[in-house]
Amino acid sequence: MKLHHVGVAVKDLDAAIKHHEALGLKLAHREVVAAQRVEVAFMGAGPWIELVAGPAVAGFIEKRGGGQHHVAYAVPSIAQVLEAEKAVGRNPIDAVARPGAWGHKVAFLHPKDHGGVLIELVEEAH
Amino acid sequence: MKLHHVGVAVKDLDAAIKHHEALGLKLAHREVVAAQRVEVAFMGAGPWIELVAGPAVAGFIEKRGGGQHHVAYAVPSIAQVLEAEKAVGRNPIDAVARPGAWGHKVAFLHPKDHGGVLIELVEEAH
Repeated sequence: MKLHHVGVAVKDLDAAIKHHEALGLKLAHREVVAAQRVEVAFMGAGPWIELVAGPAVAGFIEKRGGGQHHVAYAVPSIAQVLEAEKAVGRNPIDAVARPGAWGHKVAFLHPKDHGGVLIELVEEAH
Repeated sequence: MKLHHVGVAVKDLDAAIKHHEALGLKLAHREVVAAQRVEVAFMGAGPWIELVAGPAVAGFIEKRGGGQHHVAYAVPSIAQVLEAEKAVGRNPIDAVARPGAWGHKVAFLHPKDHGGVLIELVEEAH
């Protein structure tokens, strides 16, 4: 398990990309992930800063005005982690892995089970 | 500029270390940073998850119940970044670099200048 990216919710994706480019982070990948109702931009060279905009983060932005949204870890097997979570009585947000950005499989774990941190698991396709 | 660590505010440092070890992240470094009124634990192998406990994050934990606190970037020169911030009219929390964990110099940038993200700059000592 190692850090894959840090998700940051933003109102305006174009403006946020420019802001991070000015800080010295290059745009690595940009993608509309329709199934998750977001558009994302990965900044830097890995582990990335993932800028996330769209309906799926609108509530979060409404409440907090944008900012850190989730922490993502690369894992060899999402299924294995989900099994381990359930075995200790936790309730992952996703029961099974689903398609995410960049062709990866992803699943989210509940912040109440992880000290207030929304955790994303990433099973890399490349 | 590249990701150095993700700071997570926690109530109980020992419990949080055990929690992250169970997720598969090893303890890399633990330190009381008296000047910043925190005790921290770096988990993983870099970029790290920095667990932060102590008076300096008590208000944050009171308000949000713990969770993502800041995003830290390694930079060659903190002074240079602070100058660049001021040049575009921003007001960094720290006017100059100060001693941080692990012997590094650090400085914080204001979340209102960075889309709600509290940014820490780290000038590495090693």
